[in-house]
Amino acid sequence: MKTLVPFAATNPKTRLSPILSEAERKTISRLLLKHVVETLAAAGYEPTVVTTAPLKIELPTTVSTQVDTQPLTAAVNDQLSDEKPTLIVMADLPLITPGDIGRLTTDADITIAPGLGGGTNALCIREPAFRVDYHGASCRDHCRIAADCGATVETVDSRRLATDIDEPQDLVEILLHGDGRIRAFLEDAGFKIETGDGRVRLSRNR
Amino acid sequence: MKTLVPFAATNPKTRLSPILSEAERKTISRLLLKHVVETLAAAGYEPTVVTTAPLKIELPTTVSTQVDTQPLTAAVNDQLSDEKPTLIVMADLPLITPGDIGRLTTDADITIAPGLGGGTNALCIREPAFRVDYHGASCRDHCRIAADCGATVETVDSRRLATDIDEPQDLVEILLHGDGRIRAFLEDAGFKIETGDGRVRLSRNR
Repeated sequence: MKTLVPFAATNPKTRLSPILSEAERKTISRLLLKHVVETLAAAGYEPTVVTTAPLKIELPTTVSTQVDTQPLTAAVNDQLSDEKPTLIVMADLPLITPGDIGRLTTDADITIAPGLGGGTNALCIREPAFRVDYHGASCRDHCRIAADCGATVETVDSRRLATDIDEPQDLVEILLHGDGRIRAFLEDAGFKIETGDGRVRLSRNR
Repeated sequence: MKTLVPFAATNPKTRLSPILSEAERKTISRLLLKHVVETLAAAGYEPTVVTTAPLKIELPTTVSTQVDTQPLTAAVNDQLSDEKPTLIVMADLPLITPGDIGRLTTDADITIAPGLGGGTNALCIREPAFRVDYHGASCRDHCRIAADCGATVETVDSRRLATDIDEPQDLVEILLHGDGRIRAFLEDAGFKIETGDGRVRLSRNR
C-alpha cells in the first residue's frame, strides 16, 4: 500500500521550545521520524517521507524521501490524486508498534486514528475523492469530508496511535512508555518524571 | 465478575478548579460517574461504587454503593482480600463504551488500561496476591507489583480508556468525542473548542 509520512523539516516542534533548544528539537523530531518509518518498515510497508527539505539522516533502505515545499495538507493531497489506496502516518508517534499499523488497514473507505486534542495521527484512505485537511480539529473535519464523499469511516481506538509529541507534557509519555532511543535521548538531556498525587510531571536536571 | 468503581465524593476534581466552580466540579464528577456505571451496566456488569461519602444521585438498579472513608488505595485493597477476580474502573472516563469494557477481561493475571500521564484507568485482577497502589506513576507501579507476584500482564491499548478527566485541557476530549450528557453540560456552561495550528483549545463564554 502506498504509504506517506509527512515531515516538516524546518524549525520543527516549535511548541517544545520552552523546554528544548532548536538543536534538541531538530534531534528529537528526527528520532521520532526514524521510529515511525522503522515501525512501518517492520510492519512490511515501504513508506515515502514527504519532507519540506532534504534530509541528512540514515533511514531503512525500503524508505524513500520526496521533497515537497508546499504546506503539509497540499503536499499530501497531491499524493492522493493517483487514486491508489494510501496510508498516511504522522512522523511524531513515539509509542507505535508494527502491530498498531496493522489496525489501520480496515475494510472501511476511511480509517482514522485520532490524536489527542482533535488531531489526526493516521489515515487509511480507500476513497479516491477524499482529501485531507490537517488544520484545526482535523479529526472532526476528516469525518465530515468522508461523509461528504459518502465514504464509510472506522475509528481506531489506540492510545499509542493517539500519542503524538506536540507539547512539553507529552514527553512524559516517552519517559513512561517509549522506545529506547528516544527515551535515552531525553534521559541523557536530563529529563525525568516526577510523581505526586496527580499525573506524572516532567522535570529536567542540567 | 466483581466490579468496583472507586469515587472520591468530597471536593472532587480539584485540578479543574481554575475553570470550574466547586458546584460545577461536583456536577461533572457525578455525570462522569453515571457514564461509567451505566456503561458497565450496559456491558452486563453489576458494579459497586466504592464512595468516600453517601451519594444522592440516581444510578441504574444493578449498581450498588458502599461507603468507605479510607483513601482510594486502601478502600480498593480491602475489596480485593476475598480472592475473587475483580474489575476496577476509574469513575472519570467520559469516552468509554460497553465494547471497551469487554477488552479489559483478558486471560492475563493482570490486565491494565493505562491513563494519560502514568495513571491506571482500569484493572482486571485475577491474581489473588495483587494489591493496587494508585499514588504516583501507578501504571508503572502496577506492572512492578504484578512482576513481584509472578503474574502475567496484558496492556489494553485504548485511547478511550486512557482518557480521564483530570486537567482543564482534558475537557476538549469530551467536546470533541464525548457522550451527549456530559458534553451538553459543558456546552451549557459556555465551553467550546477553539481551533488553530496545534491542538484544539478550551475556551469559555460566560
